[in-house]
Amino acid sequence: MNLTHLLSIHDLARDDVTTILDTAEGMTDLALRPIKKVPVLRGRTVCNLFYEDSTRTRISFELAAKRLSADVLNVSAKGSSVSKGESLKDTALTLQAMGVDAIVIRHWASGAARQLTGWVDAKVLNAGDGSHQHPTQALLDLFTMRQRLGRIEGLRVVVCGDIVHSRVARSLAQALALLGAEVTLVGPPTLLPPHPERWPVTISHDLDGLLGKADVLYLLRVQSERMREQHFPSVREYARIWGVDAQRLARLPEGAIVMHPGPMNRGIEIAADVADLHADVIAAQVTNGIAIRMSCLYLMLGGEA
Amino acid sequence: MNLTHLLSIHDLARDDVTTILDTAEGMTDLALRPIKKVPVLRGRTVCNLFYEDSTRTRISFELAAKRLSADVLNVSAKGSSVSKGESLKDTALTLQAMGVDAIVIRHWASGAARQLTGWVDAKVLNAGDGSHQHPTQALLDLFTMRQRLGRIEGLRVVVCGDIVHSRVARSLAQALALLGAEVTLVGPPTLLPPHPERWPVTISHDLDGLLGKADVLYLLRVQSERMREQHFPSVREYARIWGVDAQRLARLPEGAIVMHPGPMNRGIEIAADVADLHADVIAAQVTNGIAIRMSCLYLMLGGEA
Amino acid sequence: MNLTHLLSIHDLARDDVTTILDTAEGMTDLALRPIKKVPVLRGRTVCNLFYEDSTRTRISFELAAKRLSADVLNVSAKGSSVSKGESLKDTALTLQAMGVDAIVIRHWASGAARQLTGWVDAKVLNAGDGSHQHPTQALLDLFTMRQRLGRIEGLRVVVCGDIVHSRVARSLAQALALLGAEVTLVGPPTLLPPHPERWPVTISHDLDGLLGKADVLYLLRVQSERMREQHFPSVREYARIWGVDAQRLARLPEGAIVMHPGPMNRGIEIAADVADLHADVIAAQVTNGIAIRMSCLYLMLGGEA
Repeated sequence: MNLTHLLSIHDLARDDVTTILDTAEGMTDLALRPIKKVPVLRGRTVCNLFYEDSTRTRISFELAAKRLSADVLNVSAKGSSVSKGESLKDTALTLQAMGVDAIVIRHWASGAARQLTGWVDAKVLNAGDGSHQHPTQALLDLFTMRQRLGRIEGLRVVVCGDIVHSRVARSLAQALALLGAEVTLVGPPTLLPPHPERWPVTISHDLDGLLGKADVLYLLRVQSERMREQHFPSVREYARIWGVDAQRLARLPEGAIVMHPGPMNRGIEIAADVADLHADVIAAQVTNGIAIRMSCLYLMLGGEA
Repeated sequence: MNLTHLLSIHDLARDDVTTILDTAEGMTDLALRPIKKVPVLRGRTVCNLFYEDSTRTRISFELAAKRLSADVLNVSAKGSSVSKGESLKDTALTLQAMGVDAIVIRHWASGAARQLTGWVDAKVLNAGDGSHQHPTQALLDLFTMRQRLGRIEGLRVVVCGDIVHSRVARSLAQALALLGAEVTLVGPPTLLPPHPERWPVTISHDLDGLLGKADVLYLLRVQSERMREQHFPSVREYARIWGVDAQRLARLPEGAIVMHPGPMNRGIEIAADVADLHADVIAAQVTNGIAIRMSCLYLMLGGEA
Repeated sequence: MNLTHLLSIHDLARDDVTTILDTAEGMTDLALRPIKKVPVLRGRTVCNLFYEDSTRTRISFELAAKRLSADVLNVSAKGSSVSKGESLKDTALTLQAMGVDAIVIRHWASGAARQLTGWVDAKVLNAGDGSHQHPTQALLDLFTMRQRLGRIEGLRVVVCGDIVHSRVARSLAQALALLGAEVTLVGPPTLLPPHPERWPVTISHDLDGLLGKADVLYLLRVQSERMREQHFPSVREYARIWGVDAQRLARLPEGAIVMHPGPMNRGIEIAADVADLHADVIAAQVTNGIAIRMSCLYLMLGGEA
């Protein structure tokens, strides 16, 4: 595999995904040792360039890079007064001139990560661009499914919630389809994609009808900023119709798992007791996030040393 | 000693305190070498989780961790829009899943550090929780007294200022009492604790009467945010009645020391010339802060490697 | 050379500058290796103390320190509520007590870096103080001129733009004069220095007349905050009279270079196509900035180990 950049699941072949997951497998062992550090990226510099806040994703990439012994540079571009388009190009040229080896970028604009690759020799890892892609999230979710359920091919995955605005949903659906899982999207009609035929998925409005045959129930975070835009009447109504409580949970077949990319809104898309019952899988997603990011950084930067 | 967490002076036995101080003694040597670094915590991750700003305490812990060769993750949770209680639990579960080895937490809520221990396997170090505790500050103050005055037992320590809101005062009074020092609290009646019988101290309103027999005069920072709440009439009046100037300083016995946890309000609780005269002890508190934090991190994390 | 602090070009002898540039030469080789790291400052702590935002300069110093294996402490003092004068002294005394080896300071007040040297034993590097000095910028510009044009002595350098507020212009003019280059300052009369006789330069108001004989055209950034103060009528007028476009560029002799300290305002002081045409020199300034800062840190801290 020759992974130049990691911008979108769409760029990856089935074998690429398998290589990333298999390499991550080896990285999980490291997390169990007291000294969680290997010197494979010593002397390399990874820059976290974040135009949106994201403590969770930033520290996951930071830990991944540090466990590979890379140096990490945190650059928060939030609130920069420079005109935005210019700023990204100038910042890119500066980081290029500084010789950083990889740039992890989160940006509010869809396509920003790909744009960056036009200006730098560094490897670019997309850590979320607008409502477009968040590939490492999809990869860590696949890794967690494979770890917990033994396979990805043939899995029936129900993704529930705010699909249309979600880069997590888009990346995940593509990745699952690529590896042969069956994906059904379910949620309020206003939050489903306007052109579902472009997605490799089935669309449904009947959550309860789906649960009996699901291997994975993947809940998306309700983003409070969407509520102001009136995509659904109220948080309370959302919780009643789409939230997963103990009663709904009981409809899932034995062995099925509930996943959530975090941070959770307990009491909205997921009841507090459901969150606690399935806390181990949700925690595994976080743990595996570091392994997946180590795997990607290693595959992208490790070969040259 | 088996120091699982460092939450409150109240949890420590006399021997625990002595062990921490003795271990810190060894750490002070390191600060004199050109290469101020030992590899004892290589591969361990220390997360600074700060819900309140504190450059001084944050960089002291950061330096302590780096001098032990640990990796440091800075997470500033200030201004997070997530509902606060949830946020702490979710952040805790995330850090737990990421496998960090120690969490240094500063939080505006009393009890937050102890609450954290319910959610994580990591060692928790309380770097200040509300008006409750700030144990490493108390330990570095004891270390400085022992270093300067040769002992702690039997010392007469006068703590002056805003006691009721001060986690520093509470931790220090407990630690001093544990090691056999005599503590007197003095200050405006509105700033003394409402239930002094719960403190192992004597209460006084006569600062000048106490000075002649004090070994240590410990001045607390006047917090300007308190002034708005009208705990005392004006800064000028506070400085006149409770501030320590050269004249008051002259009442102290020879060899007595003046301490301040910083940052100082020169001209309010301490006159500028007094601050300069006693600058070496106040600087020693800062220097010793790193040694104490190295000692705690080493005792809590060092044994497993 | 005995470089205690790096506060102002004014403190340097011609040989000092040459030593810094020659040492930086060796550092540029490191940037070409996959492992861009040498252990010469292992165990030393460099503190970036920034009272003004500057991602570009901060990360340049951070990378320089990390490539020399020093530990880096980032302290952003912006927005601190402490009264400003006190704050600098108290922060200085704290950093002194913490035993940091070097302080890189950026401050809004001219003279702040020199003031700091009165309170600390650490080496102080001025990363910009008010409208006074920014010595590492001048040094990296000289390095880039020597690299591209083979010499500094005798070069004819035209510096164009907002001279009076620019620490970059002041430092650069002094450094160039020290090494025997001829400097001409040109720009709107309101933005030229009020006492030009104190500068080792020629003053001109005729940009076009100068271009034919220039070896270097150095463009300064128009700072939008100045515009509110009415130093010139409008951005559009500035661009027309002082901005460098392709037509103006054509007047430069063959082999002449265009430089800019960044970040650029494309379309104001420099047309977008000119910026792109000369992007390699402007990028070289950024690349060389790391080498110069490594050189300074090494010369100031490296001797003691």
